Amino acid sequence: MEATLEQLCAALRKYGMNPVLRGDSSRRIQRVATLEDAVAGDVSFLSNPKYEKVLQTTRASAVVLKPDLAAPPHLDLIQVEDPYAAITVLIVTLHGYRQHRRVPLDRTRSSVHETAVIGENATIHPGATVAEDVVIGNNAVLYPGSYVGPRSRLGDDVVLFPNVVLYDDTRIGNRVTIHSNTTIGEDGLGYAPVGGQWVKIPQIGCVEIEDDVEIGANCAIDRATLGQTRIGRGTKFSNLIAIGHGTHVGEHGLFVAQVGVAGSVTVGNHVTMAGQAGIVGHIRIGDGATIGAKAGVTNNVPAGDTVLGAPAIPIRDHKRQVVYMLRLPELNETVRRLEKEIAELRTRFTARA
Amino acid sequence: MEATLEQLCAALRKYGMNPVLRGDSSRRIQRVATLEDAVAGDVSFLSNPKYEKVLQTTRASAVVLKPDLAAPPHLDLIQVEDPYAAITVLIVTLHGYRQHRRVPLDRTRSSVHETAVIGENATIHPGATVAEDVVIGNNAVLYPGSYVGPRSRLGDDVVLFPNVVLYDDTRIGNRVTIHSNTTIGEDGLGYAPVGGQWVKIPQIGCVEIEDDVEIGANCAIDRATLGQTRIGRGTKFSNLIAIGHGTHVGEHGLFVAQVGVAGSVTVGNHVTMAGQAGIVGHIRIGDGATIGAKAGVTNNVPAGDTVLGAPAIPIRDHKRQVVYMLRLPELNETVRRLEKEIAELRTRFTARA
Amino acid sequence: MEATLEQLCAALRKYGMNPVLRGDSSRRIQRVATLEDAVAGDVSFLSNPKYEKVLQTTRASAVVLKPDLAAPPHLDLIQVEDPYAAITVLIVTLHGYRQHRRVPLDRTRSSVHETAVIGENATIHPGATVAEDVVIGNNAVLYPGSYVGPRSRLGDDVVLFPNVVLYDDTRIGNRVTIHSNTTIGEDGLGYAPVGGQWVKIPQIGCVEIEDDVEIGANCAIDRATLGQTRIGRGTKFSNLIAIGHGTHVGEHGLFVAQVGVAGSVTVGNHVTMAGQAGIVGHIRIGDGATIGAKAGVTNNVPAGDTVLGAPAIPIRDHKRQVVYMLRLPELNETVRRLEKEIAELRTRFTARA
Repeated sequence: MEATLEQLCAALRKYGMNPVLRGDSSRRIQRVATLEDAVAGDVSFLSNPKYEKVLQTTRASAVVLKPDLAAPPHLDLIQVEDPYAAITVLIVTLHGYRQHRRVPLDRTRSSVHETAVIGENATIHPGATVAEDVVIGNNAVLYPGSYVGPRSRLGDDVVLFPNVVLYDDTRIGNRVTIHSNTTIGEDGLGYAPVGGQWVKIPQIGCVEIEDDVEIGANCAIDRATLGQTRIGRGTKFSNLIAIGHGTHVGEHGLFVAQVGVAGSVTVGNHVTMAGQAGIVGHIRIGDGATIGAKAGVTNNVPAGDTVLGAPAIPIRDHKRQVVYMLRLPELNETVRRLEKEIAELRTRFTARA
Repeated sequence: MEATLEQLCAALRKYGMNPVLRGDSSRRIQRVATLEDAVAGDVSFLSNPKYEKVLQTTRASAVVLKPDLAAPPHLDLIQVEDPYAAITVLIVTLHGYRQHRRVPLDRTRSSVHETAVIGENATIHPGATVAEDVVIGNNAVLYPGSYVGPRSRLGDDVVLFPNVVLYDDTRIGNRVTIHSNTTIGEDGLGYAPVGGQWVKIPQIGCVEIEDDVEIGANCAIDRATLGQTRIGRGTKFSNLIAIGHGTHVGEHGLFVAQVGVAGSVTVGNHVTMAGQAGIVGHIRIGDGATIGAKAGVTNNVPAGDTVLGAPAIPIRDHKRQVVYMLRLPELNETVRRLEKEIAELRTRFTARA
Repeated sequence: MEATLEQLCAALRKYGMNPVLRGDSSRRIQRVATLEDAVAGDVSFLSNPKYEKVLQTTRASAVVLKPDLAAPPHLDLIQVEDPYAAITVLIVTLHGYRQHRRVPLDRTRSSVHETAVIGENATIHPGATVAEDVVIGNNAVLYPGSYVGPRSRLGDDVVLFPNVVLYDDTRIGNRVTIHSNTTIGEDGLGYAPVGGQWVKIPQIGCVEIEDDVEIGANCAIDRATLGQTRIGRGTKFSNLIAIGHGTHVGEHGLFVAQVGVAGSVTVGNHVTMAGQAGIVGHIRIGDGATIGAKAGVTNNVPAGDTVLGAPAIPIRDHKRQVVYMLRLPELNETVRRLEKEIAELRTRFTARA
């Protein structure tokens, strides 16, 4: 899409921002780009003042920035308090979200079981598989190589990118997006030890993913042994995340790449997990908690807490601990000195006595 | 399947349990379910006494629990010493293992090379690929998108879930299950540094997976540079596990999600690796060892040991270390106080002298 | 291929080595194998003297080893200073690199959009998908289940192993190899918090992978929000690696399995990242830096530095810290003893006074 600077400012006002336009309000803008990549017709932005000098060399036609920053006279400016939030609005306005090409169902090139029910305007690409007794909602898009196992239910506006696999009995809500090579509903690590060998426990539960969830690429979410593994409404996952069987993740969470959550964990709403964090099984992470990067969480985390380290402890304690660890050589030095001083004092005392 | 409570008790007795049935032995049971999800016709179980109050509200027809627990009169009870083990038997009895739909081979929809030999009753789904000179055993199931590379050999009763990839020359035993999006036999990180660049070393070895192994979803097991990368009989992997080239994993191991083992490692039999543990290359993990969650193992681990931490040390030492680290602020405080006391003593001593 | 020992020595001389041949220079060699696996007709090698006794039992026809090592008389020997480097040359000479079977394009079995431009001698296997407006170079190989999204550009001699997914607008250079189940160009974790929910920010950038890069299996490389996520020329990745949106990785790097790099990171040239290392967003890793296994890097790393630990610190400091942590029990003991000695001194002093 194309828009004038005046139209872009109008879009910002719709989101409650108060842009001040300095320049040619009728200038036509085609794209959002970084200051380095921008060409004529692009709008760019400066959110970190330390890159201010790039303003001198950018070829952008217009720049979004804070009111107090100077800029060369040839640039049209949109001044706002929060340039990063503003550029998000401009990306949506000018570029919108990814459009999915629609193709008619070709049963000779995709495998759609005769018992499957496919919603209106859904696109099942060649190379996708829909197994028996599946129900798929309206406007769904199943890219090549995606697989929907028996008896699964998908809501409206679901997107499965190439090679996503949903095992049998998976439940997916509306407006759920799952990125490539992610696996949902595989058997968890459920075995009973019998005579030095592992005997498999049938995993007869399933995975339920609620509305408006987005799951990144190459994740693996185990089905429950009994009942459901659940990802709550609005939660967003990055890539390479492992969720164990029977774990319930709450609503509106944000999980960064390579997080691992063991089985039977209850994660509250609005929880953030930073990269490579790990959670042991059978514990509770309270609402609004934040789990730091690489944290190894071995105990319940109260609502609202931020924890860090392995084993994870409250972040303030962890930071103090890190400082004390850095000072360990110095502390050892001090203790050795004190030892000497005490020995010397004793010697002097004894000599005197 | 459906069974009466009396039949379920008979099944438990076959596994050496001594169930006591309190209630209607002819009641017909269809499913195992959690206390929360159960409806009429379901059997459920209580293994953790802290959930005892859920017995009041469950809609299950029968519950498996320990002998000494009370339950409302409307529930039929199966009393056993180990309710969790018992429910495993009931899941197998009532639900069994996942059944794989059999479909006849359709060479227009799957790519099976003319030189491939496919066993009796094997199912090659549309969208699966079997390359040249492959041999596949009886009853194997290859789901859509699975790929078996040239010269690979698969035993009987192998299941490849959707989008599993086996590179060339892979050897898979009998009754092996591999979950979706797992890759077996890709080239490892084998490069020689030449003039500031990395020159690839051909990886001419292969991967060998022995009988009764189960590999989770989204794992990656490198082929060996020379010889074999091997996963021993009966070992079970969870998801997102990385195994380096030339590593040998023993029999009957249990590897939790996101474990990483570098190349040329020898892992003994009956080894447990907890989540996100990492093992450096060229070391040995002894039989029966346990590697704790997030451990970073940099040295050989003796048979039977349990290690934790990064670098990993015996668990007893690690736990003590964690306690001492928590007390570091206090220790620093003490040392500061001692410094003052010594200074004061010296002053008094000198004044006296 | 087959070669005589004399021909193998000639190959080593071409790489600047000075092999000394002791034995039958006309002996014909078919394969490289480990000492344990070798049979007649194989050449093997001994690089670690601790395995010297295996020379007594190997069935290899010839062995590459250092000049000063003894060997049984029935073995032909190639003596060189660096047996490991020499065997690499012999693997290339005798085995070469993996050959990819060429098949003609069959548009009824692969999905190649009519607008796609495919180079000469490229192989698009059945089950591969090439979307609209894609350009693919000469000699490319797209294995079954690989997917190339709209408007992507692939150079010459690119290999996509089975089930690799490239999202829209991906740019791939020449001689790039990507292993199975890797995802390139999925949306990163870009959301704006609005009223307690996460609103998606369209990710309109792309991924650019330069010449001679090799990416392992099951990796995930986010597309940029704006501009490019970039992997520099000659860099090699192992498996299960996550790269965040907008991150730039330099040239000739080596990344071990399960590394995670957050978004907007700048990684210099010739950087090594060991297994399970993690890098927070928006920092810089200097040229030639080495990031230790499991390191958690939270600050810029200067060029040439080696860091370890979480939070990561220079390796020398980290190793000292580890030693001091092991001595914490002892240090606490010492401090307790000093406390007692001071108390005793004070008592004696006071009694005397």
